[in-house]
Amino acid sequence: MIILDRRQIEDLIYLPAAATAIRDAFCSTSRGEVNLPPVGHITFPQVSGDCHIKYGHMQGKPDFVIKIATGFPQNAETEGGTGNGMSLVLSATTGAVQAILHDEMVMTDMRTGLAGSIATQALARSDSRTVLIVGTGPQAMRQIESHAAVMGDHLNFEVWGRSASKAAQLADKLGGRFAVRSVSDLETAVRSADVIVTATGSTKPLFQSDWVSAGTHITAVGADAPGKQELDVNLVARADLRVVDLAAQCLDHGEMSHAAVQGLIAGQDVLELGQVLLQAATGRKSPGHITIADLTGIAAQDIAIADVVLKAYRAKGGRDV
Amino acid sequence: MIILDRRQIEDLIYLPAAATAIRDAFCSTSRGEVNLPPVGHITFPQVSGDCHIKYGHMQGKPDFVIKIATGFPQNAETEGGTGNGMSLVLSATTGAVQAILHDEMVMTDMRTGLAGSIATQALARSDSRTVLIVGTGPQAMRQIESHAAVMGDHLNFEVWGRSASKAAQLADKLGGRFAVRSVSDLETAVRSADVIVTATGSTKPLFQSDWVSAGTHITAVGADAPGKQELDVNLVARADLRVVDLAAQCLDHGEMSHAAVQGLIAGQDVLELGQVLLQAATGRKSPGHITIADLTGIAAQDIAIADVVLKAYRAKGGRDV
Repeated sequence: MIILDRRQIEDLIYLPAAATAIRDAFCSTSRGEVNLPPVGHITFPQVSGDCHIKYGHMQGKPDFVIKIATGFPQNAETEGGTGNGMSLVLSATTGAVQAILHDEMVMTDMRTGLAGSIATQALARSDSRTVLIVGTGPQAMRQIESHAAVMGDHLNFEVWGRSASKAAQLADKLGGRFAVRSVSDLETAVRSADVIVTATGSTKPLFQSDWVSAGTHITAVGADAPGKQELDVNLVARADLRVVDLAAQCLDHGEMSHAAVQGLIAGQDVLELGQVLLQAATGRKSPGHITIADLTGIAAQDIAIADVVLKAYRAKGGRDV
Repeated sequence: MIILDRRQIEDLIYLPAAATAIRDAFCSTSRGEVNLPPVGHITFPQVSGDCHIKYGHMQGKPDFVIKIATGFPQNAETEGGTGNGMSLVLSATTGAVQAILHDEMVMTDMRTGLAGSIATQALARSDSRTVLIVGTGPQAMRQIESHAAVMGDHLNFEVWGRSASKAAQLADKLGGRFAVRSVSDLETAVRSADVIVTATGSTKPLFQSDWVSAGTHITAVGADAPGKQELDVNLVARADLRVVDLAAQCLDHGEMSHAAVQGLIAGQDVLELGQVLLQAATGRKSPGHITIADLTGIAAQDIAIADVVLKAYRAKGGRDV
């Protein structure tokens, strides 16, 4: 059995290689090659905490993965934020535990960052330069790292947060590696952005639909459980293209769910990211269109990133103990 | 964080103490004090394997537990049988992983054995002596150990299996510790038993309803997933008392489900074991009654046994590493 901790895992993930694996995972999902049972969920209302259990098996893989991710917003702020957890890798032929990847959320953060950047690359205008990041937590950082790794060095990042000082801190922290600055006026930033990435734990819309200019792409990664919401339902309704990681999930508790409950969109109004990546469906059709990617997170991503970690571990001579 | 392996865990569980914890867990469940989300389940049809994820939180406990149990019947027969898995203990206030109990199924086996014996003790005639165990796997052994630990040394165990040689092997293995013998004629054994415990992975009834004598108690622990069945639906219908660990679960995929689907019983025809243990409901009303306990396994048991292991570990001076 292999047991790895957060630091070991983070060192083993090379973003461009991991991006390929995550992209393949979305394609496999849309080809129907991944068994993805419903997500498990338990809440701890007294401390506003929760735990998700995502698990699944990709056809032909010798292993399956169970990913446990906790979110306890009341935790004291630490480097790793309020998330924690681990992934377990088990044999799909014997049930034996192959690996315990005690990542304390870093794998989830990285695969979510990569998914966001893959969706943006697939859907944003190809001349996009300015990426507005709404949020200042660990996921905001991962979105910047991933967008730069997947789309290139030409991007200019702007960071806005409810706390101006946290936005400034994040810009300072990443300023040496990327073109990033904090902004204080959200409306102005939304109006001028080519791409908007929302990465918050918000339960209500972060900005108004009418601030969003034609041609903008929005990637929303925060709504991973019932009750969470980052986008105005009018923006979801107004968008020319709505892309999701998994239709059943996004219509249940993603951004799409809020618009669907209000009757503004229906199930046939969303496309899966894998279909766009496979070119089985058309993505952006015009530079003036507004496009949205609603990513709630699927076990196929957790399977892919665990595979990346274990392959890298073994390639570096790591052994089972 | 504490990491324990199978051997350490088995050494830490003292059955009489664990029985008290499991009994309390059933009582807490029936008092509504345990948050038990639906069980997660994934199957691997090519090798007839599956994995259950049971998880929950007991009111007031600082931790919650996620229990992963795999069953791969095609595994080569080993000492541990075809089951595997682990329990994870996480903080209910921060989400941090407190302990990885890599029990390889031994905790599940032991808590299932204890649940069976607790149900038998609560429901069988007080003058019961002969306990027929149907099944020869690891769970059959646990049922014998637990019934002796919980009910006393006066019990005579008979073991029947589809394989007569496995039944003989189990009787030999346990013969030095308990009064146990293998039997070859199932009908005769069923007709004369005071208690029948079924502990198999069967998908069809193991014996006929009309073999069962008045006054018999039956504890069935094998039906833990859709498609599994040990008892004749006519026996379930005929029983004077039907007790379950969790009504929703047993009516969904336990022994009760098969009778319910055929319209032979309804939801109000089952009682929960916790209600009987709390004396909130009446158990056996007559020595001539047939009683059935249908145990599908609930996370409250997994929480209790994990707690037993960690308390014993700490009491013996074990530390977090």
